[in-house]
Amino acid sequence: MNTVVLLSRDSLLLKQLQAAFARSAPQLTTVLADDPLAKNAQIAACWFPLPGSLAALPNLQVIHSVAAGIDHLEHDPSCPDLPVCRVVDPGHRQGMTEYVRWAVIHYHRGFDQVLEQQRQQHWERPLQRAAGQFKVGVMGLGSLGSAIAQDLASAGYDVRGWARRGKDLNGVQTFAGAEQLNPFLDGLELLINLLPLTSETRGILGNKTFEHLANGAALINCGRGGHLNIDDLEHALKRGKLRGALLDVFEQEPLPADHPLWSMPGVTITPHMASAASHDCIAEQIAENFRRLNADEPLLNCADRTLGY
Amino acid sequence: MNTVVLLSRDSLLLKQLQAAFARSAPQLTTVLADDPLAKNAQIAACWFPLPGSLAALPNLQVIHSVAAGIDHLEHDPSCPDLPVCRVVDPGHRQGMTEYVRWAVIHYHRGFDQVLEQQRQQHWERPLQRAAGQFKVGVMGLGSLGSAIAQDLASAGYDVRGWARRGKDLNGVQTFAGAEQLNPFLDGLELLINLLPLTSETRGILGNKTFEHLANGAALINCGRGGHLNIDDLEHALKRGKLRGALLDVFEQEPLPADHPLWSMPGVTITPHMASAASHDCIAEQIAENFRRLNADEPLLNCADRTLGY
Repeated sequence: MNTVVLLSRDSLLLKQLQAAFARSAPQLTTVLADDPLAKNAQIAACWFPLPGSLAALPNLQVIHSVAAGIDHLEHDPSCPDLPVCRVVDPGHRQGMTEYVRWAVIHYHRGFDQVLEQQRQQHWERPLQRAAGQFKVGVMGLGSLGSAIAQDLASAGYDVRGWARRGKDLNGVQTFAGAEQLNPFLDGLELLINLLPLTSETRGILGNKTFEHLANGAALINCGRGGHLNIDDLEHALKRGKLRGALLDVFEQEPLPADHPLWSMPGVTITPHMASAASHDCIAEQIAENFRRLNADEPLLNCADRTLGY
Repeated sequence: MNTVVLLSRDSLLLKQLQAAFARSAPQLTTVLADDPLAKNAQIAACWFPLPGSLAALPNLQVIHSVAAGIDHLEHDPSCPDLPVCRVVDPGHRQGMTEYVRWAVIHYHRGFDQVLEQQRQQHWERPLQRAAGQFKVGVMGLGSLGSAIAQDLASAGYDVRGWARRGKDLNGVQTFAGAEQLNPFLDGLELLINLLPLTSETRGILGNKTFEHLANGAALINCGRGGHLNIDDLEHALKRGKLRGALLDVFEQEPLPADHPLWSMPGVTITPHMASAASHDCIAEQIAENFRRLNADEPLLNCADRTLGY
């Protein structure tokens, strides 16, 4: 019997996933953690699973994140040492590409300045430059980061990319590894973070990174909240090193109503909306991995837990 | 002798154009209206020329707008009946495409809602839909409108286009003429105006147009201020027929500091920044038309003054 157990603290998400599996993967049986049949489950579909819930499943063979990231599993120290897979949704990529394109044009054409000027009823055209004169850097060149870097290059921007390992991308100047981080950053006017959150990347959006950017650069964080050092951000905004930051991810979500980021000058908050895998795509990809598991074929989108992605 | 006279009330623009002609078309002599040599000019390069200034030029053969629009000539009732040409700048198209792409994503992904929520420190993900489910209409399918409609279609949007005369565009459902205006408008979630300003299109952005749109639709005006009925806009925003309007053009520019549009809820003001032809491109295209005039070849980008574009 093909059983998937759904593990999350978010009860709305659990309901949405059950409906999506019923629609898009009816050949699978889906159960919740408190169901006695959960002990039969070979695959667990997880989003911030309760600590201990994975270790309690005797027949588990694959841990499946329902997102592109797997960092949410690290909150469970008893998480078993099993293969971990992620969901890579083409719609996910499209949504993220739209979000980043909006953000790049926002800073490139000076919409941030114009929105601010409207409050003062002030008419002044921001400096308008061709896209090819605007230097954009993408940190993280996985499936999302690569698609975004290439989308921006096709729109005419001067695009650099950086990743742990080297990568060839059409129209993008790429940099690899710690020793090429500073040359990648030097003089960027816009830095976009799409890195996975690992022990190496935690806090990477801080003073040491900001100081290499052009004065008045902007920051977009679509990675994880743990990448950003908020004190360093506030300092960089105050002294004008950064002109603005668009933040979509936070260590605590929803961002608490009394959090200082909400009203920090230059900061724009979006509610983790850049992109999310569709529920039907999650069900379809987990069903495909179930088929591969039974057929002893290599699993789709396996992650390396020691790397963290 | 090849003489171009520069006619505008904007003294900064005159200086910028003189420098651009010196750089990009040094074979031409450029003069201002008060120069005795102006009487030799065969071509006048104009932006809101003073009434009577064109009629005072005895050797004039071509009136050249320095912009894509020619409506600014209509402020001069004594404007001679000579061929009128426009400037069509590929960079102009790129700038406008960026502006409109920002605006479409802004409303499609709910950035307008999210910016408003930030003021209340409120976290709520707007309804997220695929681009293919978002209905966008482009009014005006000249060189700019066609490029924009196709750009949006390539980004996956459900795009319709409307123009006076029929046009075939890849991936865009096109409508033509007055009798197809309502079918074009029906149910649109975003209406983008790029029409030329003529006696037929003046005031077209008003109640009769708005009532056909989807409830809660958004409006983008990159045409001319004279297209928009501001009272109708205010009414449509108040009753929720429209959720927002992004306005880049106004009957009086700069928009006066005490104008009610600055603080009308739902209205975003940008300072005529969507696009402008580069000064060097203006010089190059006028120089090319000078060559064609002397060689008796057809002029580039001739406008039809009875149509107004």
